[in-house]
Amino acid sequence: MLNRVRSAVAHLVSSGGAPPPRPKSPDLPNSTSAPPAAPPQAPRSPPARAGSGSAAPARTVEARASFCRPTFLQLSPGGLRRADDHAGRAVQSPPDTGRRLPWSTGYAEVINSGKSRHNEDQACCEVVYVEGRRSVSGAPREPSRGQGLCFYYWGLFDGHAGGRAAEMASRLLHRHIREQLKDLVEILQDPSPPPLCLPSTPGAPGSSDSSHLVGPQSCWSSQKEVTHESLVVGAIENAFQFMDEQMARERRGHQVEGGCCALVVVYLLGKVYVANAGDSRAIIVRNGEIIPMSREFTPEAERQRLQMLGFLKPELLGGEFTHLEFPRRVQPKELGQRMLYRDQNMTGWAYKKIELEDLRFPLVCGEGKKARMMATIGVTRGLGDHNLRVCSSTLPIKPFLSSFPEVRVYDLTQYEHCPDDVLVLGTDGLWDVTSDCEVAATVDRVLSAYEPNDPSRYTALAQALVLGARGTPRDRGWRLPNNKLGSGDDISVFVIPLGGPGSYS
Amino acid sequence: MLNRVRSAVAHLVSSGGAPPPRPKSPDLPNSTSAPPAAPPQAPRSPPARAGSGSAAPARTVEARASFCRPTFLQLSPGGLRRADDHAGRAVQSPPDTGRRLPWSTGYAEVINSGKSRHNEDQACCEVVYVEGRRSVSGAPREPSRGQGLCFYYWGLFDGHAGGRAAEMASRLLHRHIREQLKDLVEILQDPSPPPLCLPSTPGAPGSSDSSHLVGPQSCWSSQKEVTHESLVVGAIENAFQFMDEQMARERRGHQVEGGCCALVVVYLLGKVYVANAGDSRAIIVRNGEIIPMSREFTPEAERQRLQMLGFLKPELLGGEFTHLEFPRRVQPKELGQRMLYRDQNMTGWAYKKIELEDLRFPLVCGEGKKARMMATIGVTRGLGDHNLRVCSSTLPIKPFLSSFPEVRVYDLTQYEHCPDDVLVLGTDGLWDVTSDCEVAATVDRVLSAYEPNDPSRYTALAQALVLGARGTPRDRGWRLPNNKLGSGDDISVFVIPLGGPGSYS
Repeated sequence: MLNRVRSAVAHLVSSGGAPPPRPKSPDLPNSTSAPPAAPPQAPRSPPARAGSGSAAPARTVEARASFCRPTFLQLSPGGLRRADDHAGRAVQSPPDTGRRLPWSTGYAEVINSGKSRHNEDQACCEVVYVEGRRSVSGAPREPSRGQGLCFYYWGLFDGHAGGRAAEMASRLLHRHIREQLKDLVEILQDPSPPPLCLPSTPGAPGSSDSSHLVGPQSCWSSQKEVTHESLVVGAIENAFQFMDEQMARERRGHQVEGGCCALVVVYLLGKVYVANAGDSRAIIVRNGEIIPMSREFTPEAERQRLQMLGFLKPELLGGEFTHLEFPRRVQPKELGQRMLYRDQNMTGWAYKKIELEDLRFPLVCGEGKKARMMATIGVTRGLGDHNLRVCSSTLPIKPFLSSFPEVRVYDLTQYEHCPDDVLVLGTDGLWDVTSDCEVAATVDRVLSAYEPNDPSRYTALAQALVLGARGTPRDRGWRLPNNKLGSGDDISVFVIPLGGPGSYS
Repeated sequence: MLNRVRSAVAHLVSSGGAPPPRPKSPDLPNSTSAPPAAPPQAPRSPPARAGSGSAAPARTVEARASFCRPTFLQLSPGGLRRADDHAGRAVQSPPDTGRRLPWSTGYAEVINSGKSRHNEDQACCEVVYVEGRRSVSGAPREPSRGQGLCFYYWGLFDGHAGGRAAEMASRLLHRHIREQLKDLVEILQDPSPPPLCLPSTPGAPGSSDSSHLVGPQSCWSSQKEVTHESLVVGAIENAFQFMDEQMARERRGHQVEGGCCALVVVYLLGKVYVANAGDSRAIIVRNGEIIPMSREFTPEAERQRLQMLGFLKPELLGGEFTHLEFPRRVQPKELGQRMLYRDQNMTGWAYKKIELEDLRFPLVCGEGKKARMMATIGVTRGLGDHNLRVCSSTLPIKPFLSSFPEVRVYDLTQYEHCPDDVLVLGTDGLWDVTSDCEVAATVDRVLSAYEPNDPSRYTALAQALVLGARGTPRDRGWRLPNNKLGSGDDISVFVIPLGGPGSYS
C-alpha cells in the first residue's frame, strides 16, 4: 500500500502495557504455532531499488524473517528471490503443474517498485472444514446426527508499515472464521429459523434439558426473525474482531508490526460472503455487467464516523486535532475571519468564525488518495495498527480505526452462471490505475481467448490484470500503454470463477 | 403521527433549567411575534370520537389555542370546524378561487380518526425573498451590484405529543433557511468557486480589505473544492439546527410541547433540495419512473448510530437500557444462556452469554412501525422533543434524536419535464397504507383525466392520494377498497409539478 501510512514506521512506538494474553478461542493457534507460510530457509532478499535503504539496521533481521509469500505459489528459493525483486517485478502465479487452487481460482501478484523492502500484500486460499462444537441442545454431537460444514475461503491482505500483520492475518483469519462457525454447524443445516437462545456450555448442568432451549415458538410474540445468512455475517464480523484482538495481545511478543487491509470471500451453503475492511476492492463481472461487492473505507468515506467519534470523545484528539473539517488547514492570520467548515452532522458546507481551537490540525484532511486521518493514515478500517501513533506525537490512532468489515452477500443460486462470470478481488495496487470497466474489458478479452473449460484461463486473467496495472519499464518508471504511470505498489489479484465448486476443478 | 410516541404526553416533564433566550439570528421573530397561521377566533373544535376524551382538562385551553391550519387553506370558521372533525374527516384543499399556490402546487389534508385532539400535521408553502446581508468583501451591498435571491419553499411537519412544535416549525423554518442564505446571496450568483474565507463582520476593521479575502488562488495547493450546491445544503442543515435550538430556548415560555418530523423542499437556482428529518417521504414520479428523494429515519434505520452513541456515552442510557440489540427482551431465567445479539458494529447476528446487564431494556426494539427507541419513540430525527422523557423515568430522549436532515438534490435543468412529472410529499399517514408504486399509478390515473394545462389537476391529485389513504367509513372503521384498514393518522400531501416555476401558474 503506497504511502498509506505517512512515515508511520518511523513513529511506531511500543505501547506501555499490552494486555496479558487471554485466548478467546482455545482451539486457535497463536501466531507462532502455525507453520509459517514460507520456507524458513527463505534467502535474504536483494536490496530494493529505493526506499529500503532507509530501513533501520536493527529491523533487518526481523524484516528478513517476515519475508514470505503465499504457500500456494510453491516458490522455490530462486522463485522467492525473483518474487522479491523490485527491479524485475516478475508476475507470480501458482505453477501450471501440480494441485490447482479450489474452483480453478486464478491468482497473480507482483512486488512494488521499491516503496517497501518486501511485498507487503499477502494472500490465502483454502477449503476449510468446520466440525460442530456440539449440538444445538448442548449435548455432545452424535456422529450420525449431521455432517460438518465446508467453506471455501479467499483472502487478500494489504499490509502497511510492515508486513507482519498481513502475514499473520493470512495465516489465521480463516481459522477465526472457522471458530465462529463451530457453534452454527447444526443450525445452518437446519431449515427452521435459528434458535434465539442456546444453553451456556456443553455438559453444564441442565444444558441438555431442552426446556432451556428457547425456540421461536415459546418466545414472546414480538421478536425479530434472524436469518441463517445474518448468522454467517455475524460470524465473519466477529472473526475480524477476534483476529484484531489477537494481534493486540501478541503485538509485543511476536512483533506484530503495522496493520493491514483485509478483503475476504467465504463461500458457504450456496452464498458468497464478501467482507472488506480497508481499500481493497471486489467486483463481480457477470455477462459483462459490473456488480460492486465492496466499498473502500478511507478518511473521506468515513469522515462522519470519525468526526462523530472525535466530537463525542474529544480526549481522543489529544488537543492536537479538531473534529471539524475545513477545505484546507486554517492559518493563524485567519483568526476571526469566517471559513468554510463541516461538522460531524453536515454533508454540506457553511461558514464559521475561526477561533483558536480551529487552528488545530483537522482530523480528516486531503482528498482522494491523498486523504489522511490524523495526518497519518489513508485507510480507516483494517487489522492491527495497535502501536500506530500520530507523527511526532504519542497520540494513538487505533481508536479511530475499525476492524469491522462490511459484508455483502451474493446468492450464487439465483443466477445461472457461465464460465466467463467471475469475482475479481484486488488490492489497491490494481484499482489505483484500473477502473472497474477496464477490468471488465480485460475479463472479456482474456477469457474469450481460452476454451471455456481450460482451467488455466483464470490464472491468465489474473496475470493480465496485474500486468495491466504494473505496466512496463520505460522512461525511468513503470508505464502503461497510454504512457501514464503504472502502479508502483504491490499488486495482488484473485479471479474466482462463479460456476460453482467443482465446475472447473 | 399515530402511536409514534408511546404515552409521551403523559410523561412530558418540564426540565429544570431551560437556558436563557440567546437569539442567534436577530432578524428572526420569536415564536410569538409571527402572526398565527390560524384566525384567533378559531372556534372550539367538537370532541373527537376517540382518544380526545383522555386529554387532561388542564390542557384544553392550550390545546384549543394551538389549533390552526395552514393559512393557504383560507378556512372560514365553519371550514375550520369541518377540518377539525374526526368523524367526517373531510379532505381539505386550498379553494379553487383566489390565489393559487406557487407552481400550481396541489395540496390536500385530512385529520386523524381520533388518535389526537387536533390535526398535528402542519404545512407551509411560500416564495421567500432573500436579501444579501452584505457583499462578499464585507462592504455594504450596493443596490446595483446584484439582486437578492428567491427560493420556493414547501414544508410538511408531522407533530407528535402535541401540535405546537409542528406549528412553530411551519411558521419559522423557512425564515431560518432565509437567514442562513443571507450570507450566500452574492456567492451563489457568482459562477466562480465560493471563497474559502470571508471577513468576520461587515464594517469590522479591515473587513473591507480584500487582502483578507482568501480566494482559491491564494490558498495552499491542497484544498477541497466546495460547490455552490453544498453551500445550500449546509444552509438548510444549519437552519434545521437553529430551528431546533429556538424550540429549546422557547420551550417553557411558549409551551413548545412535543416534536415534529420535518420534510421540506427548497427550489433555488435550478435545483430542488429535499431535506428530511423524520418518517415523512418524498418521491419524484417522472414519466412513470419512481425516484426516491428521501428515506425514513426510524429506530431500525438508525440502529447503529443510536447504539454507537449509547456505547460511547453509556451515561445517556442511565443504567436502564443496554446498547445491545436482542431479537426480543431477555428474561431473567435466561441468565447464563447464550442469546442472539447485535452490537453497534454488527449487521449480522451472533450468540453471546447473557449477563446481568443484558436484562436491561434494549435501546432499540421492535420492528417496522412498532420499532421504538428507548421504548418510547418511533422516529429518530426531527425538531423539538426537548422535554421528552422515557416512560416512567426522568431519562431524556433528546440526546439520541437528531435534528439534522438528510438533503438530496435534484437538478431540474438536467431533464425536460412534462406536466405529468411531479414531486409528491406525504406524511406517514399517506405512506403507511400506500406504496410508491400505488402513488405512481394514482399520478397517472388522475393527471391523465385532466388537460395538461389545467392548474387544478395537482390539487385533484393530492385529494385523490389523501382519499385513497383515508378510505371510507365501513365496518366500524375507515377502510380501503380492498377492505384493509385505511390510515387513521393525519394525512397531508403536497403535489409539486416539476415543469418549473411559472410554467403552470
